[in-house]
Amino acid sequence: MKRVETIGVIGGGQLGRMFALDAKRMGYYVVTLDPQEHSPCGQVADEQIVAAYDDLGAIEELGRRSDVITYEFENIDIGSVRHLESLSYRVTPASNVLHVTQDRLLEKQFARDAGLQTTDFASVRDAGDLDKAAKTIGFPAILKTVRGGYDGKGQWGADSIEEARAALEAAAGAPLIFERMASLKCEVSVIATRSSRDEIVAYPVAENTHDRGILAMTIAPARIDEAIAARAREAAATVGRGLRIVGTYCVEFFVSTAGELMLNEIAPRPHNSGHYTIDVTQCSQYEQHVRAICDLPLAPPRLLANAIMMNVLGTGTGNHLDGVADLLTDPTIVVHMYGKRHAVARRKMGHFTMLVDGPVDDAAIARAQAALAKLRWVRC
Amino acid sequence: MKRVETIGVIGGGQLGRMFALDAKRMGYYVVTLDPQEHSPCGQVADEQIVAAYDDLGAIEELGRRSDVITYEFENIDIGSVRHLESLSYRVTPASNVLHVTQDRLLEKQFARDAGLQTTDFASVRDAGDLDKAAKTIGFPAILKTVRGGYDGKGQWGADSIEEARAALEAAAGAPLIFERMASLKCEVSVIATRSSRDEIVAYPVAENTHDRGILAMTIAPARIDEAIAARAREAAATVGRGLRIVGTYCVEFFVSTAGELMLNEIAPRPHNSGHYTIDVTQCSQYEQHVRAICDLPLAPPRLLANAIMMNVLGTGTGNHLDGVADLLTDPTIVVHMYGKRHAVARRKMGHFTMLVDGPVDDAAIARAQAALAKLRWVRC
Repeated sequence: MKRVETIGVIGGGQLGRMFALDAKRMGYYVVTLDPQEHSPCGQVADEQIVAAYDDLGAIEELGRRSDVITYEFENIDIGSVRHLESLSYRVTPASNVLHVTQDRLLEKQFARDAGLQTTDFASVRDAGDLDKAAKTIGFPAILKTVRGGYDGKGQWGADSIEEARAALEAAAGAPLIFERMASLKCEVSVIATRSSRDEIVAYPVAENTHDRGILAMTIAPARIDEAIAARAREAAATVGRGLRIVGTYCVEFFVSTAGELMLNEIAPRPHNSGHYTIDVTQCSQYEQHVRAICDLPLAPPRLLANAIMMNVLGTGTGNHLDGVADLLTDPTIVVHMYGKRHAVARRKMGHFTMLVDGPVDDAAIARAQAALAKLRWVRC
Repeated sequence: MKRVETIGVIGGGQLGRMFALDAKRMGYYVVTLDPQEHSPCGQVADEQIVAAYDDLGAIEELGRRSDVITYEFENIDIGSVRHLESLSYRVTPASNVLHVTQDRLLEKQFARDAGLQTTDFASVRDAGDLDKAAKTIGFPAILKTVRGGYDGKGQWGADSIEEARAALEAAAGAPLIFERMASLKCEVSVIATRSSRDEIVAYPVAENTHDRGILAMTIAPARIDEAIAARAREAAATVGRGLRIVGTYCVEFFVSTAGELMLNEIAPRPHNSGHYTIDVTQCSQYEQHVRAICDLPLAPPRLLANAIMMNVLGTGTGNHLDGVADLLTDPTIVVHMYGKRHAVARRKMGHFTMLVDGPVDDAAIARAQAALAKLRWVRC
């Protein structure tokens, strides 16, 4: 296999940026492809090809310039990945992974087939499907578009058939998945990395709090029973093996009040809930991805401190982040900003990690929340 | 004071690169100035101005584009820094710092005046000076050019007046400093950062092993008495205050077999012996420099693990580094490569940090040395 000098990344967002920061640190050349000039990833990469994700000419150009190609979010055009594969460029994870993870029904079915528990679900394409799902699965439910949603977009909660019908109408013909909402203790995720030699490493289970569909806070390690944590890590390994993923991926789970562990979603890429690995492990989820796609040995992660990660979202009130100096008076805080010019409401602009001595308790969480409250988007 | 969005860096080497990686992670725009296109720093910066360090037009351009300017090595043209100062651009550390640290005689005299111990030294410009120094200071001695040397260049050891005369001849008229070589227990360094508010933070004392004038290995923390370590950290604070440095700097010391602590050299910038701070503290020497020059609070460093840092030098036997996959089978190793194309003999090409549980002992050092021995520069 050809030695990797240059890594191509489809997508120029913050995940690509953090990946590129680690890849550059390790000495690789990085070329990214993104339609937006001077993208978050483009700012730290050696080069950026400015083009749409489905511009096959540009995708081919990326293939020519790179020794291996990866992507930083899963809603890129699968056709682009297949095109690279058809030309024998090394692209990883392979298109079979995208095929499954881009479709919530295939994803859930894959999980079931692999012996993993999920919430009860049904496919809903019309009012007849909806009535059937309402009867067999029941409420409270959540309806999601089968394809393309992220960060809470394309999702509707429903406590009744009337609300479910409103969701069906709002979806405007897009195929939906109807899922029973379980009574949750918490949501957790496992970041894992698999190599082409079928090595798998998994990070400590992370506990996630969302706000209107967008990740707000991650606590690592999750405050759950070790037995459930072990099951989650095993399930993540099962997913990686089943899909033959080469690279870093994330598996999100619901933990029900009854102690069930239900697979919710698979992301075939580094994940927001794994940002903490940059600051408190010796080998971040991004470096681990570099290692996997460049056929280097994976590194069993070592947790050097416990952590709370808080996302910093835009608020639409200005593009200048005020309060960073105040935030940084706490020496346990490590700041990451993504170089985005416009702090649109609810856009992920950055995050910080708070290092925590001992177990993450309510006092530590309150400290992290108070730290976040110091930040304010203002007009200059 | 104007809020900093863009940081200018004079010099595009690996120190600038590691600085830029942290500055980018924190969300800053980085512009570097270096004569070599696509320099190590330029590869990760937003922009590079390709120009000589003493090209005042280009230096002014860097000033216009930046909210604050710094430099990544101390042998840049002091005239460039003074030029920026004369135009009221913010540049830090200020030229007074370079004035002292670019001249080994002024540097030693500054240390003496600040009440810090140094080796015995004398200025040598001709054979008469040399005879006098040989008598008053004696041998073994080391002769160094007063200006411009680094990594063992411009240095000659001398055990006799004959050898000293040969050094004087080799220096070809360059002014020299004649220093007594003390009987050493070890060499140590302190990385510290000072803010404009006169806050000072210092990292754990590092212990350095050189090979023919070039740093080979750093052990952190140094294996010295706590009392000597405390004195070294105090001395570093004295240096920072005395020179009114704003930014990260390094003070190197000799520890004599008699337990004396003698200041050897001051580097007004992040330093090779502080690379370990990237991997085993929550706030690296580079982030600390960003904080200082952007007027953010400094972070008292927390050591998350002990460390051994090994430099990876070129050997002139090829430009491809073989053995990285083998090296990375050890999950305690973190690799940093600088993106240099040509692995000229004894050129600093990269380094790695080995995380060590418990005190750094001979077994750990042997492990680090064995790890380094896995690497080999080959032709592709």
